Amino acid sequence: MIIDNAQGAMTSTSKVDSFPKELLDGYRSFIGGKYREESSKLKELADKGQKPKTMIIACCDSRAAPEMIFDAHPGELFVVRNVANLVPEFAPDGRHHSTSAAIEFAVNGLGVSNIVVMGHGRCGGIKAALSGGDIKLDEGDFIGKWMSQLGPVAEQVASAGMMTEAERQTALERVSVRQSVQHLRSFPYVQEQEKQGNLSLHGAWFDISTAELWLMDNKSGDFKRPEDV
Amino acid sequence: MIIDNAQGAMTSTSKVDSFPKELLDGYRSFIGGKYREESSKLKELADKGQKPKTMIIACCDSRAAPEMIFDAHPGELFVVRNVANLVPEFAPDGRHHSTSAAIEFAVNGLGVSNIVVMGHGRCGGIKAALSGGDIKLDEGDFIGKWMSQLGPVAEQVASAGMMTEAERQTALERVSVRQSVQHLRSFPYVQEQEKQGNLSLHGAWFDISTAELWLMDNKSGDFKRPEDV
Amino acid sequence: MIIDNAQGAMTSTSKVDSFPKELLDGYRSFIGGKYREESSKLKELADKGQKPKTMIIACCDSRAAPEMIFDAHPGELFVVRNVANLVPEFAPDGRHHSTSAAIEFAVNGLGVSNIVVMGHGRCGGIKAALSGGDIKLDEGDFIGKWMSQLGPVAEQVASAGMMTEAERQTALERVSVRQSVQHLRSFPYVQEQEKQGNLSLHGAWFDISTAELWLMDNKSGDFKRPEDV
Amino acid sequence: MIIDNAQGAMTSTSKVDSFPKELLDGYRSFIGGKYREESSKLKELADKGQKPKTMIIACCDSRAAPEMIFDAHPGELFVVRNVANLVPEFAPDGRHHSTSAAIEFAVNGLGVSNIVVMGHGRCGGIKAALSGGDIKLDEGDFIGKWMSQLGPVAEQVASAGMMTEAERQTALERVSVRQSVQHLRSFPYVQEQEKQGNLSLHGAWFDISTAELWLMDNKSGDFKRPEDV
Repeated sequence: MIIDNAQGAMTSTSKVDSFPKELLDGYRSFIGGKYREESSKLKELADKGQKPKTMIIACCDSRAAPEMIFDAHPGELFVVRNVANLVPEFAPDGRHHSTSAAIEFAVNGLGVSNIVVMGHGRCGGIKAALSGGDIKLDEGDFIGKWMSQLGPVAEQVASAGMMTEAERQTALERVSVRQSVQHLRSFPYVQEQEKQGNLSLHGAWFDISTAELWLMDNKSGDFKRPEDV
Repeated sequence: MIIDNAQGAMTSTSKVDSFPKELLDGYRSFIGGKYREESSKLKELADKGQKPKTMIIACCDSRAAPEMIFDAHPGELFVVRNVANLVPEFAPDGRHHSTSAAIEFAVNGLGVSNIVVMGHGRCGGIKAALSGGDIKLDEGDFIGKWMSQLGPVAEQVASAGMMTEAERQTALERVSVRQSVQHLRSFPYVQEQEKQGNLSLHGAWFDISTAELWLMDNKSGDFKRPEDV
Repeated sequence: MIIDNAQGAMTSTSKVDSFPKELLDGYRSFIGGKYREESSKLKELADKGQKPKTMIIACCDSRAAPEMIFDAHPGELFVVRNVANLVPEFAPDGRHHSTSAAIEFAVNGLGVSNIVVMGHGRCGGIKAALSGGDIKLDEGDFIGKWMSQLGPVAEQVASAGMMTEAERQTALERVSVRQSVQHLRSFPYVQEQEKQGNLSLHGAWFDISTAELWLMDNKSGDFKRPEDV
Repeated sequence: MIIDNAQGAMTSTSKVDSFPKELLDGYRSFIGGKYREESSKLKELADKGQKPKTMIIACCDSRAAPEMIFDAHPGELFVVRNVANLVPEFAPDGRHHSTSAAIEFAVNGLGVSNIVVMGHGRCGGIKAALSGGDIKLDEGDFIGKWMSQLGPVAEQVASAGMMTEAERQTALERVSVRQSVQHLRSFPYVQEQEKQGNLSLHGAWFDISTAELWLMDNKSGDFKRPEDV
């Protein structure tokens, strides 16, 4: 318990406990480079507080950082990242819910105008849900439980044997984004703000191989290239 | 159910439902700029799969994107972002846990070598936990419940009236990182990998105003500038 | 009684009673060096009397001499130095009070325009108040009694177990400066001169490791780098 | 009470509350100048702790900084400064005593090898004790009470009408140093360490006009130039 012995508790048993050199090099590169352009913006944002217009719910995947894809500047994107960019259904059961807390914060605290659920290709979480990939799914595991939120659709897609593995993967990645956008609407304040015209919900899908961005058509649910929406 | 009526369910009632122009502009800027440098890297990462060495648990805050701070390239950082960068204690209760699922994925699925918990200054979640800021805390709310994971330490810091508001805020931001690093060790596979010398745990704190990076000393728990660690 | 037997009383029993060589060397260095620049200034100050604009209340610590930190010249700073740079509350009880006498002298005798309470990092007195360091605290000792002037705040900070030892130390060093500035205002003439706009009170904190100077913001009580005040 | 409202309590009513420009200029001069020479020394002293060999008890006077006179470097001198560099007699009465606390800290905590009581010419406190100067003495005042520690010797010197005012002033400045050295020996641990040969007590007197340093001869109590001791 940190309260009793902050010092003792910190003793690391790891043999490799120096801070990753790549990160320090990257930090120095940031300070010597981009920070020069952004320093006054950061100072202003620190003084006045953040007021991002957009929340993005994206995947933890190392190849799909929203800030890179949207060339975003500090203060622009409020970003949740979880495995497979899932939005759970509204379920106020007195337990802690990471993503739901972030949605509540973004809508009620910051008053964002947009929420974008952004899926991506070759998603490890989705791959696991289709029973394959880096990790086995087990209801007793956190990942198994987490991905089980996709519900019966994952199973349906998994058993769609007439589709190739890659097709099933992309299909579930996109189905999942649609489901998450629906789940967003299960939050009363999201629904209310959307009704008031203050909040807009969006789906997107990023192809990490070609860097193609696909946007979900709010009418049909189809994913289209930006120029076709 | 999305399977039954994919089209109907997508019908948006929002008056402002076109994809945010800033994001599209940013995407075009990415394609015309950084993507040129990163395209072969992205292609390779798509083909071979991600193999990030480092997981970062950071805040949703729009001013503290890890990729910016560490000038990271695609494939380098597996990133969880939740409100106030909290790591819950290991609690396999058969319910879904967003952050725990991501930790399991990073350690068991990807075999990362480092996990960095990165706090930052002027954190809205921490401010809420100290009863102030953009949003009111209520145990019945998601944010109230989420921040209650800080436990009694938040109350202790909140009542340290002899410290200024800003000092209490920074204190809790750092206490919280230390607690999260401890919580990481409550995951059996984290503990095991750390013992084996395969995994290293780190704390960091970013000052969004000055862009100063502070690293947690693994022995004392103190936060120091990189040159002093 | 010195008047009766000046000679006998002076007899030292010490085996090492020659004046410290380092001091004599330092004095010769002063005469051969800085004194050349300052001699006319010193002569003038001797003839006209001192008229310092600023009083500094600093610690006895050998690493935090105000004249060094502020590169001060003779005649500029009226300096009190006691353990942990404490200002007691105004308490005219007919007993002698070293620091209070100096404050009275500075304000009523010299008419200073500024009083600066200057704390510093790794303060041995503060460390003792947090029950550690070079010397044990005991209410029966002079140091125990002296540091007990910090009152309940020391105990509060000392018991903030979720903060590291170094964090508690810095917190109390700064809390202590704020309290001393408040105590200054308990002196009627300090209060009066401040009200009249003739006297300004300040807090500062010096990091003896990095030589960073932090100034107390008079509105919030926060400590900030000079460029941010 | 700072515990209740750290923020409110800090609100200054002063019209002149910006930090003194001279000090900031001086600090910058220090950082750009002497700090370059001393930075590694300061860092080392911060890491290892101070270990000064000498304690100096000097006056608050702006013209008599011990660090200037002895061209001292960080870490060399543990410095108490009070009005007229007085050492009270050992009097453990359960009240707080600034100078006694510092002596206890220096001898028992730091184990200094030397204590130097350093008087100086044109001392305002001594002048006040001889009923003149910048401030009137009144037993009810802090200064009156503080200077009354000189006891009957001040009155005797004051009434020595055959001496000029300047002679009486110098006489009392030196008598006072002798008395303070005697008072030092009333502290049991000072006496003990001196007997053991671990601690040496010294008197000195600095002429602020000519920068002449005079040392007290430990045998006779006379003040002599360094070359004559």
